[in-house]
Amino acid sequence: MRLISFQHSGRRGIGVMTSDTAFIDLSKAAPQMPTDMRALLGIGKAWQQRVEQAIKGKAADYSISDIAFDPVVIEPHATWAVALNYQAHKEETGLERSQYPEFFLRVPTSIVGHLQDLLPPRPPYMKAFDFEGELAVVIGKPGRYIAEQDALAHVAGYSSYNEGSVRAYQRHNRQFGLGKNFEKSGSFGPWLMTPDEFGDPYKQSVITRVNGVEKQRCGLNEMLNKIENQIAYLSEGFTLQPGDVVATGTPGSLPGTDKHMQHGDVVEVEITGLGVLKNRVGQQP
Amino acid sequence: MRLISFQHSGRRGIGVMTSDTAFIDLSKAAPQMPTDMRALLGIGKAWQQRVEQAIKGKAADYSISDIAFDPVVIEPHATWAVALNYQAHKEETGLERSQYPEFFLRVPTSIVGHLQDLLPPRPPYMKAFDFEGELAVVIGKPGRYIAEQDALAHVAGYSSYNEGSVRAYQRHNRQFGLGKNFEKSGSFGPWLMTPDEFGDPYKQSVITRVNGVEKQRCGLNEMLNKIENQIAYLSEGFTLQPGDVVATGTPGSLPGTDKHMQHGDVVEVEITGLGVLKNRVGQQP
Repeated sequence: MRLISFQHSGRRGIGVMTSDTAFIDLSKAAPQMPTDMRALLGIGKAWQQRVEQAIKGKAADYSISDIAFDPVVIEPHATWAVALNYQAHKEETGLERSQYPEFFLRVPTSIVGHLQDLLPPRPPYMKAFDFEGELAVVIGKPGRYIAEQDALAHVAGYSSYNEGSVRAYQRHNRQFGLGKNFEKSGSFGPWLMTPDEFGDPYKQSVITRVNGVEKQRCGLNEMLNKIENQIAYLSEGFTLQPGDVVATGTPGSLPGTDKHMQHGDVVEVEITGLGVLKNRVGQQP
Repeated sequence: MRLISFQHSGRRGIGVMTSDTAFIDLSKAAPQMPTDMRALLGIGKAWQQRVEQAIKGKAADYSISDIAFDPVVIEPHATWAVALNYQAHKEETGLERSQYPEFFLRVPTSIVGHLQDLLPPRPPYMKAFDFEGELAVVIGKPGRYIAEQDALAHVAGYSSYNEGSVRAYQRHNRQFGLGKNFEKSGSFGPWLMTPDEFGDPYKQSVITRVNGVEKQRCGLNEMLNKIENQIAYLSEGFTLQPGDVVATGTPGSLPGTDKHMQHGDVVEVEITGLGVLKNRVGQQP
């Protein structure tokens, strides 16, 4: 099952895809159910079954051309992103890494949905306004002290993520802080795909293209700290919440390429077997 | 004016203090107004005037002994905290600092309200479960590219903050990430005091006591990156949102003391002229 967060005529809702372009509006199919992804996942482990029952026998309400995509989860309790999680990316940054996943946080205003324009920083910082193609994991079942072997049972679904970064600010000091949180500098979508449909993430790859030219291609099995380890580690600190997002790290650039984005570029992050997240880099207003 | 976020009989609300112990329940005085601090600040610049009108001539509804305190803002869009912002604290950490404020983020589940128990980490990490007494700034008026001389006009109010930290995790790598986000490891309160009542923050001090023994005492004028600079810097990256919180950094410990907290300790963070935030360190369940 693939679910989207969307806006239509000023109203927000959740859609269930019936094809690559059409979807059922969950709030029409099931008016009593939450219209926000985080709240939907918060109803508990039967959320997927309840959605499946609600849409059974229903026809699509809209085409994706009728709506605007929101980020898959609009305002998660937390969005964690992990640095230096692929060998080639670690090497291109020149930074040291430890055995632990190196986590930082992103705020909701830093992320847009599929097909929404990215907002670039002011001109001096365009020298290194960088994409980072990643697999995003969305938590369903809450938990603390989760063992690695149980971790994937806490995943509600997967998505594509562009963890866009303003390098000059990222390098102001030790914390990546503000450089990872520029307004509308990243994106998240197009949809959440449930684990039963996505299957084994380590059989898939992340591919990033800018204006059709491939810039990143790497198997997700090359993650240094695997998804299970990332979830287990975070759960040592706090109870993971439904709708929490983990952006699992970006691989290195392909030889001879870089990660820079420029005004007007069209950036696509594809997770094979899942879908393509596409955004244009707009103009700073 | 002093405002609290509270719970009473399973209901959440905003209170306006009429003394140090009694308050008016805003949802009784003005049922049409938001019952959440972030939403209240989001109604725009007239929020304070509207609250003042709503409570005019009203008597207190409750004593603070009738209710449980929530964090002043329960789920801000963002809580930024700044590292190494006082010379003595920088020296005791041995870390380098740059000219820019070194910001990281905290998630809502890491923070409790006044008089709520802090939740310590598992025993091996009690060796350095540390308080950090700080002044918290709450944003009212949204804005981007805010000049330093305009920054304080974006502040809705001030509060006390215990930016509790689990040092072992904080040191796992460059990012403070998880070590600054253990569940219920910090606190925020007791109330938001508006700028007209608080006056010049740089005339006040932060004092931290553990079981009545003073551990920190420092003038807020000793901040290395002042509040105005912190707000201006953040606004280079994104539009500050009503209810956003900035924890402005902790000073060094008094000579011969450390910042460690143990089970059963009572920790007080006082901002002079504002109030005392008090929490006990509970037992790990």
